[in-house]
Amino acid sequence: MASKNIMDFDTVALDDAKGALVIIDQTKLPNELKILELTELKDIWEAIYLLRVRGAPAIGVAAAIGIYLAARQISAGDNDFDTFYSKFTEAKDYLASSRPTAVNLFWALGRMDNVVKANSDKSVEKIVEKLRDEAVEIREEDIRVCRSIGEYGLTLIQDGCGILTHCNAGQLATVKYGTALAPIHLGRERGYNFRVFADETRPLLQGARLTAYELQSNGIDTTVICDNMASQVMKNGWIDAIFVGCDRVAANGDACNKIGTSGLAILAKYYGIPFYVCAPTSTIDMTMKRGEDIEIEERPSHEVTEMWYKQRMAPEGVGVYNPAFDFADNELITAIITEYGIARPPYSASLKEIFAQKELTRHVGD
Amino acid sequence: MASKNIMDFDTVALDDAKGALVIIDQTKLPNELKILELTELKDIWEAIYLLRVRGAPAIGVAAAIGIYLAARQISAGDNDFDTFYSKFTEAKDYLASSRPTAVNLFWALGRMDNVVKANSDKSVEKIVEKLRDEAVEIREEDIRVCRSIGEYGLTLIQDGCGILTHCNAGQLATVKYGTALAPIHLGRERGYNFRVFADETRPLLQGARLTAYELQSNGIDTTVICDNMASQVMKNGWIDAIFVGCDRVAANGDACNKIGTSGLAILAKYYGIPFYVCAPTSTIDMTMKRGEDIEIEERPSHEVTEMWYKQRMAPEGVGVYNPAFDFADNELITAIITEYGIARPPYSASLKEIFAQKELTRHVGD
Repeated sequence: MASKNIMDFDTVALDDAKGALVIIDQTKLPNELKILELTELKDIWEAIYLLRVRGAPAIGVAAAIGIYLAARQISAGDNDFDTFYSKFTEAKDYLASSRPTAVNLFWALGRMDNVVKANSDKSVEKIVEKLRDEAVEIREEDIRVCRSIGEYGLTLIQDGCGILTHCNAGQLATVKYGTALAPIHLGRERGYNFRVFADETRPLLQGARLTAYELQSNGIDTTVICDNMASQVMKNGWIDAIFVGCDRVAANGDACNKIGTSGLAILAKYYGIPFYVCAPTSTIDMTMKRGEDIEIEERPSHEVTEMWYKQRMAPEGVGVYNPAFDFADNELITAIITEYGIARPPYSASLKEIFAQKELTRHVGD
Repeated sequence: MASKNIMDFDTVALDDAKGALVIIDQTKLPNELKILELTELKDIWEAIYLLRVRGAPAIGVAAAIGIYLAARQISAGDNDFDTFYSKFTEAKDYLASSRPTAVNLFWALGRMDNVVKANSDKSVEKIVEKLRDEAVEIREEDIRVCRSIGEYGLTLIQDGCGILTHCNAGQLATVKYGTALAPIHLGRERGYNFRVFADETRPLLQGARLTAYELQSNGIDTTVICDNMASQVMKNGWIDAIFVGCDRVAANGDACNKIGTSGLAILAKYYGIPFYVCAPTSTIDMTMKRGEDIEIEERPSHEVTEMWYKQRMAPEGVGVYNPAFDFADNELITAIITEYGIARPPYSASLKEIFAQKELTRHVGD
């Protein structure tokens, strides 16, 4: 049992007094809960590169805070915008090179860049202030989105439910609460007792290493299983609902997520168990018509045959297929839970409604 | 690429001149092909206990040869049956204690015991001769059964097929050919080119360690995948048929096999891919009505969280569920392939026909 509750720590935070990005070092989990305070840009770059901070939302927030801290350190005359912007751009491009495929990284850095450009008539001190505000806002937005997904998700389950999840779409992938695990953490705050099964999630074992740690440290009844045991757990009648995160949702509701998700969705259908995808609207790509259009990234074979092992676990030279993602067909998904509400089939209509709701909320907020 | 072809080695053999049980040490695979010649009963016991030889059929054959070799070494007057039988029984009970749950171990030792009892009027030398004959027969029967399953299985696939398998029901689990892998090895003898995908099969990794080694060493195009990638491989259209072995088949056709089998069968149904169970009639238990009646063995949690790893992969104290087997519902199984032919649904009728065929063949052979 972990002695510290991970819910007492933010995955990504800003300590403005110390001028530091504060993160949990996820490469040390589940064996050690180590908090890092990073003040130098190269250390922040390295933290993203080495997966000390991971999960698309968490990476975006870390990058926003990182570029704000870098901007603070730029020595330029208070009215010398050109020098400031040149050094800012250099730092931003450097940070962007840490995880070339992480969309949220570019998205967050782009938002920070827009702040600088929109305030080019102001003093450098003022611009840096605005950058801090934007980084804080990006971070707070992430918490609001996750909390909202958690609230909607919680309406779909009851106290005492058995829940299955895959990979880590938890607090450790965001600032707080997570996406797929948000209903569980929020329920826990309200005294609900869930029994959660965590697929270990081969080959990178995010379920065994991160999800199990995160849930256990928050006092939630957690059981790790190998991915191939999910069918038996469902057959045993132990699972009332499956919650997974996602990397991208197509306009028809096909949901791309960690490899193994499509198989889980098929099993859920067979056993009559609801299958829920938790998706911030930022991951819903209405320009992508269907799952087949999403290219599946293949990763190195050593992740399967060697990475965690004391010795090679498959013969030298054997073929290995190591796709990082797959997608669940929309017909297998019971509902897609967003921060603006719950979308039900047919998704081609309901996802449009979600975006209409998002637009409406924005305008009301104007 | 393995430099030696495993098909040139028997998994279990008798070297009568040397008085040795000859086995491949499977604990050294896939990193080393080591042949052991075991002459002492305690070494044979240890080889079974430590899984140097594994797979129900292979264990049965090893035990039969082992008890024959022990009988050879018993010092008793040639007409002193009582002393001989007392020492024989001691050796048999010792060997039976090596793997308390392995049915084939008891079955093979029982057959050897029957030989002794049926020849109690003969000289010890003669009894030992009869024991050798029985051990050789048990071994040859295993080869015949596997070869026959392979022949029937081969009628269900064509040259160039993509095949998915789970765990290791190959030559390494038997004397030769295996059960699920028999059609692949026989096809290879005839120049067929299959493309085989091997589930790594967590937690014990028999697919990555043994099946991949066995197939690769026989020059078969082999690709290792994590268990949770099977759905994606099927979706890609790469799989024409799935072949698995089994530990026990119920009278209604429910097939108990390595954990993960039920999930694979459900995926196969979803994608419209034939799902074949290869089952020697010795594994079909007509007294067991259905899969639910089979008790699922649970194994230690460290197999999931620590066994192969450089460090713990899940937090200390977290729950782990580690069932060793599950069963595929008969409705998901396209055919059950036995040494007496191919059974098709409804299995309650077709399995009876298989046993009728077996009886008939026995009587013809009398």
